[in-house]
Amino acid sequence: MNKIVVSLLLALGAVGVGHADEGMWTPDNLPVSEIQARFGFTPDAKWATRVQKAALRLAGGCSGSFVSPDGLVLTNHHCINACVQQLSTKEHDYIKNGFFAKDRTDELRCPTIELNRLDRITDVTGRVAKATEGKSGEAYSRAEQAVKSEIEKECVGKDSAGTRCDVVDLYHGGVRALYRYHRFQDVRLAFAPELEAAFFGGDPDNFNFPRYAFDMGLLRAYENGKPAKVADWFPFSADGAQKGEMTVIVGNPGGTDRQLTIAQLESARDLDLIPRLFLLAEMRGLLERYRAESAENWRVAQNDLFGVENSYKALRGRLLALQDPEVFALKRSQEKELRDFVAADPARQAKYGAAWDGIAGALKTYRDIETRYKLVEQRRGFMSEYYDFARTLVRGGAERGKPNAERLREFTDSKLPSVEQGLFSTAPVYPDYEKVTLAFSLTKLREALGSGDPFVREVLGRKSPEEVAKELVEGTRLGDPAVRKALWQGGAEAVAKSDDPFIVLARKIDPEARRLRGSYEDQVSSVIDKNAELIAAARFEKYGTSVYPDATFTQRFSFGKVEGWNEKGTEVAPFTDIGGMFPYATGSYPYALPQSWLDAKDRLDPATHMNFVSSNDIIGGNSGSPVINGKAEVVGLVFDGNIHSLGGNYWYDARLNRAVSVDSAAIMEALRKVYRADRLVEEIEAARKQ
Amino acid sequence: MNKIVVSLLLALGAVGVGHADEGMWTPDNLPVSEIQARFGFTPDAKWATRVQKAALRLAGGCSGSFVSPDGLVLTNHHCINACVQQLSTKEHDYIKNGFFAKDRTDELRCPTIELNRLDRITDVTGRVAKATEGKSGEAYSRAEQAVKSEIEKECVGKDSAGTRCDVVDLYHGGVRALYRYHRFQDVRLAFAPELEAAFFGGDPDNFNFPRYAFDMGLLRAYENGKPAKVADWFPFSADGAQKGEMTVIVGNPGGTDRQLTIAQLESARDLDLIPRLFLLAEMRGLLERYRAESAENWRVAQNDLFGVENSYKALRGRLLALQDPEVFALKRSQEKELRDFVAADPARQAKYGAAWDGIAGALKTYRDIETRYKLVEQRRGFMSEYYDFARTLVRGGAERGKPNAERLREFTDSKLPSVEQGLFSTAPVYPDYEKVTLAFSLTKLREALGSGDPFVREVLGRKSPEEVAKELVEGTRLGDPAVRKALWQGGAEAVAKSDDPFIVLARKIDPEARRLRGSYEDQVSSVIDKNAELIAAARFEKYGTSVYPDATFTQRFSFGKVEGWNEKGTEVAPFTDIGGMFPYATGSYPYALPQSWLDAKDRLDPATHMNFVSSNDIIGGNSGSPVINGKAEVVGLVFDGNIHSLGGNYWYDARLNRAVSVDSAAIMEALRKVYRADRLVEEIEAARKQ
Repeated sequence: MNKIVVSLLLALGAVGVGHADEGMWTPDNLPVSEIQARFGFTPDAKWATRVQKAALRLAGGCSGSFVSPDGLVLTNHHCINACVQQLSTKEHDYIKNGFFAKDRTDELRCPTIELNRLDRITDVTGRVAKATEGKSGEAYSRAEQAVKSEIEKECVGKDSAGTRCDVVDLYHGGVRALYRYHRFQDVRLAFAPELEAAFFGGDPDNFNFPRYAFDMGLLRAYENGKPAKVADWFPFSADGAQKGEMTVIVGNPGGTDRQLTIAQLESARDLDLIPRLFLLAEMRGLLERYRAESAENWRVAQNDLFGVENSYKALRGRLLALQDPEVFALKRSQEKELRDFVAADPARQAKYGAAWDGIAGALKTYRDIETRYKLVEQRRGFMSEYYDFARTLVRGGAERGKPNAERLREFTDSKLPSVEQGLFSTAPVYPDYEKVTLAFSLTKLREALGSGDPFVREVLGRKSPEEVAKELVEGTRLGDPAVRKALWQGGAEAVAKSDDPFIVLARKIDPEARRLRGSYEDQVSSVIDKNAELIAAARFEKYGTSVYPDATFTQRFSFGKVEGWNEKGTEVAPFTDIGGMFPYATGSYPYALPQSWLDAKDRLDPATHMNFVSSNDIIGGNSGSPVINGKAEVVGLVFDGNIHSLGGNYWYDARLNRAVSVDSAAIMEALRKVYRADRLVEEIEAARKQ
Repeated sequence: MNKIVVSLLLALGAVGVGHADEGMWTPDNLPVSEIQARFGFTPDAKWATRVQKAALRLAGGCSGSFVSPDGLVLTNHHCINACVQQLSTKEHDYIKNGFFAKDRTDELRCPTIELNRLDRITDVTGRVAKATEGKSGEAYSRAEQAVKSEIEKECVGKDSAGTRCDVVDLYHGGVRALYRYHRFQDVRLAFAPELEAAFFGGDPDNFNFPRYAFDMGLLRAYENGKPAKVADWFPFSADGAQKGEMTVIVGNPGGTDRQLTIAQLESARDLDLIPRLFLLAEMRGLLERYRAESAENWRVAQNDLFGVENSYKALRGRLLALQDPEVFALKRSQEKELRDFVAADPARQAKYGAAWDGIAGALKTYRDIETRYKLVEQRRGFMSEYYDFARTLVRGGAERGKPNAERLREFTDSKLPSVEQGLFSTAPVYPDYEKVTLAFSLTKLREALGSGDPFVREVLGRKSPEEVAKELVEGTRLGDPAVRKALWQGGAEAVAKSDDPFIVLARKIDPEARRLRGSYEDQVSSVIDKNAELIAAARFEKYGTSVYPDATFTQRFSFGKVEGWNEKGTEVAPFTDIGGMFPYATGSYPYALPQSWLDAKDRLDPATHMNFVSSNDIIGGNSGSPVINGKAEVVGLVFDGNIHSLGGNYWYDARLNRAVSVDSAAIMEALRKVYRADRLVEEIEAARKQ
């Protein structure tokens, strides 16, 4: 990244100077002197590059890291839960019993996991600006997408299987950066504990602390059918985390909204957060009951239920933050300060003054279209894996026939390998479960748009949602990966000929879905993007200081230390230990320990640290990130934040916001004594000694 | 009511003058001259008294009316759905098949329906004021409750079975009025259509229009084992409702919040509405799935699911209103106007100035205690009919041992007949269903308070919510009304000796529940009440004009006319007709018509009005209210409001707010030709001709 961009990076972004441990920093812009001052540690370029390349992104929405030169990957159990479930059958339930590949040759391929290693960041701000100059609305949106697709395609070159390139908007478009990744799609499961250990404490303990969760798992990256050889990995610390020591968390925070305008915050609260929470709450009730009906239903629905409960709790935390009048007042005063600054100078006012109202105007349009847009284009009315396949086939068929730059962003050449991995996945689809989720979502479609709505009539005809779901699911052949592959390879023509009921449905809906997407992109998101860039520039003029961009599911470094917090007058200690787990267990899910832990109780060192909290600034997407010390050794594995971390979407509160991790000492202790996973223990130990 | 009180009534209350059809008027304070001016109709005292006494309240939360001198009562199916379900068995499913008592002797007693006929209103403002003078906090709250209990006891006298007396706070305590009712507890089911007809359109059409719902049913009041003879009833109109004609709706709107402060509105939105909606959404998902599991589950859960879905939709409508920035801005400006008026005069400021902050302070306390208060005292954590019985027995045992004025309000002498009706009810309790709802709510208890909370630990011990629910439900004998009766009659001593697990649980919880109630009443509700009275008085000083009090589930008259509205540019006609029903039906629930209607299709006059909308100002609790014309003839039966009526909790919007009713013509047509309920048709016809 060139010098101008770096200075811009240093200047744009968060309002005011944050707390000491605030910040999700891009690897090319670490706040070196602040870290030196605070921790007596200097993250030099060599250290940063090594860390950057040992850390990983799970493309589906998590983080991870290499912990051996043979491509062994540490991440959370909840990040690989879907894989564990997909590999399970009624006979071999790895969710319940855990999984350990005795030999490397027993490691099983995960159908849909893709790993990304960040190899290079390049500034492309100027090129994007040039392509969109003077444009607005639909023309702006088309030009922006076209240039991004073009840049990505050039970056990938001929190696689309092994290279992934994404143009990322940092600082709400103030900076455009090209992220080039090495892509691993052959990823295999090496070890997973039982769900009862990984998710010990379950939903009630989620986002809480003290905790005793063994939320870890091990994957391995393969290339050409062999374990990938990697140059950068993290050795395990011999001692684990120490109270008060500096911890660095390197991962991929999914998104934060710390720089939104008041109008955006209100819109997020009323139009996005609250309705989504209602939907999640209802799905939660449905899935809870579905799961309770039989052991098989339990197995089939548990991963979705985990996702629903986790989102529900996380978003409720965010909502609580937005309901706090003091915080909103703070945000208002910050916005006012910036707007007063802009208004005080006629030139600035002319340049930036209209940006806030521009965003508010786009949000008014959003209010009119968001319900339909979410139901139809974002598929909230069609919750079904079959439907997802069908839409990918219908759209993919049409889009691949167009020049790269004119395609929908998710079907550009550089994105196709991920699309194909999902489409050709051998993960099972459960027809009975599909009927339940699809019928549910069709009911929501009807509820939101009304029984008399022409689109609803077109989808349901004179049938009930349950009948429509039953007919679709029982009539489809899309559960067979070979059928999907044939339709994909046959392209638009094969799709047009198909009489598969889901393909027929997706074909019928697609024009309306595309129309809604067009309205959203042309009248809402592109308008917001353009005005957010202006606000970012105004902020830069006023606050010329070092800041970080809102999270974008790209690699960030967060610096903090191992420390507890004060919860309404009570000090919460930073560590729990293995000995505390056993009296905490009740024998009933989710407080039941698996037999393996109960059997191992006497062998385990009760003083071993189990979980700990640290002041690092993280958010969803950071799950599975390594917690490292200054020597770039793994001392822990982030799997959660405390309840106060949820407001972190909008700001970082140093007094209360804490990351929650599994201690590396607990990982080694349990792999040795509970699971006797000797070959993996030896591999990790050997990697440390290299 | 004396003259001073009437002038106060005319003056206090809603800010500014409302729209033409706005207002839920008490029978002793009708806006006679406005009605004369608008409709050319004068509601004189004789007319008003007759209407007052022909109308009824269903104590459980609905309205109704006498439609014959033999005590025949018209109300909604959804108001008697619980009774129909309670009378049903696996073999005789009256929900599915409807119910018609061929002869009077076949009419079946509803286990829990109580009817109230309003006989007298007396002003007791002065007496309450005298009793509470100079008091605050706990002392105020105790004195207020004591004087109310005393007044009610005097009013009931010796006839507690046939008389019910309630002291009602009107204008947020600006007026205290004693409502004396004739009480009917022997209420029998005469007729109910099939749910498919009554709830045609189901949840998707709820709060929508056009509509084709036959949401009616007929009860009969009995006294001394014989049909009650009543002097006042409503004859059916020969012609039904006419477009543009004046309609009067007489019923019991449950509650409105049109006079809340901004702090109260915010608290209602963030602390009450949104969390309750989350709970309802989750219960909805759970019950939907539970219901889908079997025909028997469908039957058992349908009434609860209806209640949940209805509340969910209604509260979402309210929330939408509170999320409308323009409406909140209006409320803010109204509050500012009044506060500015108060602040402009030192004497007024001294008298009223602190009231708004006083309420805000109480709401801050509420914020700290509301979660626990709702879970424990309001039983949100213990959703179980068995638990409700147990708590009534435990508390009732203790309370009945105290002097009347010192008891909890719901156990004063005047309230005991209703308590006993509920407790001794023969309505079935379904153990499997109880396990589901109780386990669910215990999970919510743990989720909200945390697994480590001492109260949660006391309730759950080392068991899961499911295990606790199973043990309680399988161990209890409270499903037997005779067991409950024996414990009630045995009083505190019998309850103390009982080892029924629900009684044991209720005994264990009661001290904490009472403590929370004490905190709530002493620090929150009594403080709010006291300050709301001050604000009401300030409003009176400023707006010396005719207004109505917020709804309080007491009788109100609402004046409007039959008219449609303009929905985003489209005129919605006020009527649907029977002919429109058949093409609207799809054959799938909730759009399936029962066989009886399909068979009768050719016999029915398709031009008969089915449902209609009118501009009357109503709200939940008005369900089952008669819609009458100037001659006090029934032209319809209110069963719903349109979607815009939901914001009516906070204000009335004359352009959009509409009540939805079944036309009296449709009622007669269907009773004759679909159900051939000749004896009831003849009774109604005979009553008209008297």
